[in-house]
Amino acid sequence: MAGLLVSHRFNAKYGADFVAAAKNNSVDVELLVLPADPEARIADADAARASVAYFSSDIFPSHTKQFFSATRKATALKWMQVFNAGVDHPVFASVLERGVRLTTSSGTAAAPIAQTAIAGMLLLARNFPRWLAGQREHKWNPMLSADFPRDLRGQTMLVYGLGPIGVEIARLARLLGFNTIGVRRSAARVEHIDEMHTPDKLNELLPKSDWLVIACPLTDETRGMVNAALLARLPRGAHVINISRGEVVDEAALVAALQSGHIAGAYLDVFMQEPLPAASPLWDMPNVVVTPHNAGASAGSDPRINTLFLDNLKRWKASQPLINEVTKS
Amino acid sequence: MAGLLVSHRFNAKYGADFVAAAKNNSVDVELLVLPADPEARIADADAARASVAYFSSDIFPSHTKQFFSATRKATALKWMQVFNAGVDHPVFASVLERGVRLTTSSGTAAAPIAQTAIAGMLLLARNFPRWLAGQREHKWNPMLSADFPRDLRGQTMLVYGLGPIGVEIARLARLLGFNTIGVRRSAARVEHIDEMHTPDKLNELLPKSDWLVIACPLTDETRGMVNAALLARLPRGAHVINISRGEVVDEAALVAALQSGHIAGAYLDVFMQEPLPAASPLWDMPNVVVTPHNAGASAGSDPRINTLFLDNLKRWKASQPLINEVTKS
Repeated sequence: MAGLLVSHRFNAKYGADFVAAAKNNSVDVELLVLPADPEARIADADAARASVAYFSSDIFPSHTKQFFSATRKATALKWMQVFNAGVDHPVFASVLERGVRLTTSSGTAAAPIAQTAIAGMLLLARNFPRWLAGQREHKWNPMLSADFPRDLRGQTMLVYGLGPIGVEIARLARLLGFNTIGVRRSAARVEHIDEMHTPDKLNELLPKSDWLVIACPLTDETRGMVNAALLARLPRGAHVINISRGEVVDEAALVAALQSGHIAGAYLDVFMQEPLPAASPLWDMPNVVVTPHNAGASAGSDPRINTLFLDNLKRWKASQPLINEVTKS
Repeated sequence: MAGLLVSHRFNAKYGADFVAAAKNNSVDVELLVLPADPEARIADADAARASVAYFSSDIFPSHTKQFFSATRKATALKWMQVFNAGVDHPVFASVLERGVRLTTSSGTAAAPIAQTAIAGMLLLARNFPRWLAGQREHKWNPMLSADFPRDLRGQTMLVYGLGPIGVEIARLARLLGFNTIGVRRSAARVEHIDEMHTPDKLNELLPKSDWLVIACPLTDETRGMVNAALLARLPRGAHVINISRGEVVDEAALVAALQSGHIAGAYLDVFMQEPLPAASPLWDMPNVVVTPHNAGASAGSDPRINTLFLDNLKRWKASQPLINEVTKS
């Protein structure tokens, strides 16, 4: 019998079905359910029976503290499955350090995040900010020929980071007519991408990139990578999209490049500080689209994550390799 | 020597290159240039030398009256090339009636119009109106799981009308994960579309269509086609996109269906009356995106149209069939 630490929302919506599905796969589980009140704590005796902890999407952000408090009390904890792809937060390093295995849900939200990134790109590329401003003012204000934006075909998009999200963004961009450049540590050929390069080639690639899409994890190498010098190497009128982690971008440098007009626009789902402070100049910039770290919001993601968790649970019981296991770097 | 009636803007931007390109193709042309002042009229003697009239995109809307006034004076006119795809306006019927041949530029703006339609779809499908409202208020307001929109995969889009625009919309939608249904008079298989049907099947298809995209020409059959009865057959929560002609939709019926919540949202580039009156309720509806008949705005379109015109000019001189010729219906 495996004790599973789960949220009250997961239990209410999926609990019984999940237990039954696990049983069908010869895994007997006991759900150890966290309290609905985020200030309440799970009983020590329950926490002690947990061998697996499930950080489901509903826990973030309201019940995050409660969840990690419980996992610290769970002295027999062996494995934690998380709903998200990026595990750069220090809390995950401490999970690994105490010897608990860690698996992500990388891939389960790739399609919605990529679709949101492409929506942000199309918003900027087709000049929707002008149309949306007209709509708010009830003003019929079509662009005339002289103001028409560039065709997508013939433009180049550089996607930095080629996990499932970056690959899906590149695939969609190519089908829309873009030339696509992919950059990642391994420069092996990736389907749907015209050119692949390693990060050491970035400086040569930036001057021909009309769009820079940041889709890499936050690591020591990528923290602050998109700084003033990098932005200056993009051609004037380039656009930036970030759906990975705010800390990859030097936000002050990006704001300055937007203000100078060197960067024509940006779609940003992530920020150095979240929630984005109300005083940030990014909110009011006419060619900046801000979304609240929410690009992956899609009703199909939770079922996909639950399915992955169940799959990993079977593997865990059978002592097989887990999908998306994170190793100490 | 063929006399070509052209706008002053076309002449200034492309005139000399166009004449040279025509000459390279053994077509000698004389440009008869309309005055820059839209109130001024071309000299009768010049109009009389015109055998071809070029309704370039810059003429609409500021110089439309001037252009058609000139073509009526052009007693030797044999052929008119227009920049757009839809020639439902009565002025084009009168062109055909006086025996002047008419060719459209169908296809030249298909990619940008389809991209704009897909942008409008993604805006609604990913719930950008909520995020954009939050941005205006500097409010960090992510959707929580319970509010997440549906995955695109598993949804069905019905595209009514499969000219180059409709086909490109369907292609992109399918690549984004939609099931696609195409409806047009000929139900022959079309690449990129899962199912093809003729208009008589529409009533059976609507209940399974989460998205209705109108991409047909305005004809006696399509005028007012999207009425209250048709909208009622769509499932509750369906969305409507119109990038063809406003008159295909009974706008009052659409407004009522949006107000009742039966239709969850709409992206509209075209309207029964244009400019859309400032008092229209569509401007302020939270899940309606209004653009000012401008979906095709893209800098690459004019060069594509000029290339098509030159191609047709060669065909005209060689007495070959013209591309996109419209025949009296």
